Amino acid sequence: MRSKQVFKGNFFHAPTYGKAEYLEETLITVNKRGIIESVLSQSSSDYQAVLAEAKASNLLVDFGDKFVLPGFIDLHIHAPQWPQAGVALDEPLNVWLDECTFPLEARYSDLEFAKKVYSDLVRQLLNRGTTTAVYFATQHLESSIELAKISAQLGQRAFVGKVAMDNPEQTHDYYRDESSEQAIADTEAFIVRVRELAKNVTQGVYPVVTPRFVPSCTDETLRGLGILAHKYDAYVQTHCSEGQWEHGYVLDRYGKRDADVLADFGLVNDKSIMDHCNFVNDHDGELFAEHGAAIAHCPISNAYFANGVLPVNRLKKQGVKVGLGTDISGGFSPSLYDNIKQTVISSRMLTDGVDVTIEQEKRGVSDSRVSVLEAFYLATCGGGEALSLPVGLFKEGQIFDAQVLDPNQPANSLPGFDIYTEPFSRLAKLLYLSTPANITEVWVQGNKVKNPKEI
Amino acid sequence: MRSKQVFKGNFFHAPTYGKAEYLEETLITVNKRGIIESVLSQSSSDYQAVLAEAKASNLLVDFGDKFVLPGFIDLHIHAPQWPQAGVALDEPLNVWLDECTFPLEARYSDLEFAKKVYSDLVRQLLNRGTTTAVYFATQHLESSIELAKISAQLGQRAFVGKVAMDNPEQTHDYYRDESSEQAIADTEAFIVRVRELAKNVTQGVYPVVTPRFVPSCTDETLRGLGILAHKYDAYVQTHCSEGQWEHGYVLDRYGKRDADVLADFGLVNDKSIMDHCNFVNDHDGELFAEHGAAIAHCPISNAYFANGVLPVNRLKKQGVKVGLGTDISGGFSPSLYDNIKQTVISSRMLTDGVDVTIEQEKRGVSDSRVSVLEAFYLATCGGGEALSLPVGLFKEGQIFDAQVLDPNQPANSLPGFDIYTEPFSRLAKLLYLSTPANITEVWVQGNKVKNPKEI
Ligand SMILES: [Zn+2]
Ligand SMILES: [Zn+2]
Repeated sequence: MRSKQVFKGNFFHAPTYGKAEYLEETLITVNKRGIIESVLSQSSSDYQAVLAEAKASNLLVDFGDKFVLPGFIDLHIHAPQWPQAGVALDEPLNVWLDECTFPLEARYSDLEFAKKVYSDLVRQLLNRGTTTAVYFATQHLESSIELAKISAQLGQRAFVGKVAMDNPEQTHDYYRDESSEQAIADTEAFIVRVRELAKNVTQGVYPVVTPRFVPSCTDETLRGLGILAHKYDAYVQTHCSEGQWEHGYVLDRYGKRDADVLADFGLVNDKSIMDHCNFVNDHDGELFAEHGAAIAHCPISNAYFANGVLPVNRLKKQGVKVGLGTDISGGFSPSLYDNIKQTVISSRMLTDGVDVTIEQEKRGVSDSRVSVLEAFYLATCGGGEALSLPVGLFKEGQIFDAQVLDPNQPANSLPGFDIYTEPFSRLAKLLYLSTPANITEVWVQGNKVKNPKEI
Repeated sequence: MRSKQVFKGNFFHAPTYGKAEYLEETLITVNKRGIIESVLSQSSSDYQAVLAEAKASNLLVDFGDKFVLPGFIDLHIHAPQWPQAGVALDEPLNVWLDECTFPLEARYSDLEFAKKVYSDLVRQLLNRGTTTAVYFATQHLESSIELAKISAQLGQRAFVGKVAMDNPEQTHDYYRDESSEQAIADTEAFIVRVRELAKNVTQGVYPVVTPRFVPSCTDETLRGLGILAHKYDAYVQTHCSEGQWEHGYVLDRYGKRDADVLADFGLVNDKSIMDHCNFVNDHDGELFAEHGAAIAHCPISNAYFANGVLPVNRLKKQGVKVGLGTDISGGFSPSLYDNIKQTVISSRMLTDGVDVTIEQEKRGVSDSRVSVLEAFYLATCGGGEALSLPVGLFKEGQIFDAQVLDPNQPANSLPGFDIYTEPFSRLAKLLYLSTPANITEVWVQGNKVKNPKEI
């Protein structure tokens, strides 16, 4: 087992929505289990003693003049769709699903194929600073287990779901659960096996009950999965009111809103991640806030498939937990940096509207702006809240997940660092301008998972 | 002088809006002046002979199994704002200009400061595949000349403007032309000196008549600059109908639309680049089409400062030339890749609307989608059309500007290249997923300006 470690560096984090903190030349002591025991500023009385002791006992990790952010938390990734990233984005949702995505996902009955894709994906996400990932795998039990194993092995904290999808009317013969019984039984087997695996995984690996979305599941399956979630106190993830079609489909099938239907089946609770949610209204927001369910905001994907922008601020004001997701491959980018930026951009477009032939007062939704620091919160602390885990902050009791950023990498040296020395200007630059080349180290629960030589 | 060269590779380009071509294992012969003399497909009768001869005389440049795109053309960059990239983007336009941008631009009276920033910017743009750049410099004559020299030296094709801004009501004492006479005289001196410099620059460097925008210029200056543009048959660039405030200001001052005012002053012609133009209507579009003026579409910047989305398709249908711009630092990104993606994303949001509380039929503008191949056209051929230069295509008579992309770089290996072998799926992946690390070589007019070892 690893020994205690002491990290010295310039840390940024966002303890509240819209307000970041800068911890300059700060010491963070981390115990053997990867938990932060203390955060010592230079003015702290223990600082010099702890530093000297760490040096003497060779426990010091000094990040020098680089900058350190919390690891990012990606709340929504379709792991099997990784090979498809950047492809077929001009298709409407039904073509994209039926002709592109489902045939690709069906290939994961092949375990070797799954291993190859999943290893590459997990590595690339880690290299981009994503230390916690919430995955949809596929309908297949074995290759879904494989994804859990691979993330465990590569050192990423992972939440993995074997996808349940059994509704013959909304799925294809070649790619669906054979029956509701099988969908439920496989989900239960998946939970049990991943929990077994998790016993030896420091950074954690968690099974997630994963009905694809209401359209692709029968009532029996949705009901059975709700019971399983309760029985195992398990995480839940599903798409909710993503786009106009899905939102309307659920209304038609049940005469009820998507959020209510999911709640009726026992799938909305404080370990639930509701993906997208662009069409939720105040009633749905209240329901989520009440039950402690979180929203995974996926702004890049939404521009392609969701027909509208999530009103993040309105939901935050209602007390709903919100984090970010890439939604690979509805979203082409594996990077939460890109999604932080698009969160800001989409929020500005929601505020100002898009069609200039409509008069200014009528074309947008006021108070919708999300700042880059607010988006940073969503990618870190917001994700931690969504998962009810102590991650996303450099604070006593939190897990030490970190990404180390070098603004002066030859492949991408960030402009103006010598002129804009105010810490939050620098943080904005790091968020807006970094490429993967600037992320020189990544740490998950006190373990280094990306090394400088691997850039 | 360089000798003739023969390039062998897998080339992509977009000869028409929305339609790309793939030239697999094709030979391109380029003369000593960097002009393409022939493009030979494998089925061409000369292919084997030309290949053998090129090998024998050591003139062959073989790009192997990499992919080659035309160099990108960035139609709108504020070079002095480079240090500010990613900063202060949450400010309203007037604060951003008065408190951030103008004080920064004022610093370019210092030639050493200018040299440092401009060298870094030009290098970083080249490293991202931007082979042609259209720059606003600052109000200062000498440091504006410096920008022209630096791009000339570093091998980038540059269009540079000394910014004219003399209206005391809309500019600050510390940063404006002293008088209309001085603004015009300095612009003329700038044109003459850059034309002198240009005599020894293979890839070209061009002076651009550059009224900042109508608000910051007096009538005398606008009139004088129009006369200069005509006298020297010079390029022109200015902001036009960018955002709600500017658009309204011009209407108030003249009782006329921005485009008409600029045309009245002789500033709208077939060598004019009109920046942003989000608020242009059909009348303005017709005016531009008639005069051959082009629009620089800057989608990232527009999300922050423009209060609306440019209706690209409507303008293309009117016959207006449209290319892309980063608008550093209103746009944070130096990459046209990022602006290609945002062009697509913004166009989807214009199509679908943003506010889901408005019914679907009423919240967007139909037929507004721009595909990734259409955006690729804008970044290449569209830019060439805007500048009335033969760049942007791999075709006889065009200038050979190219960027070489390796999808298998360890720092960013693009997923799914082995599965999605259809050329245009691969092109979409290259456009959506590349980072600067994937661009291993950049060539401008037959000269290599980025080397593998510099990645
Ligand atoms: Zn999804
Ligand atoms: Zn501009």
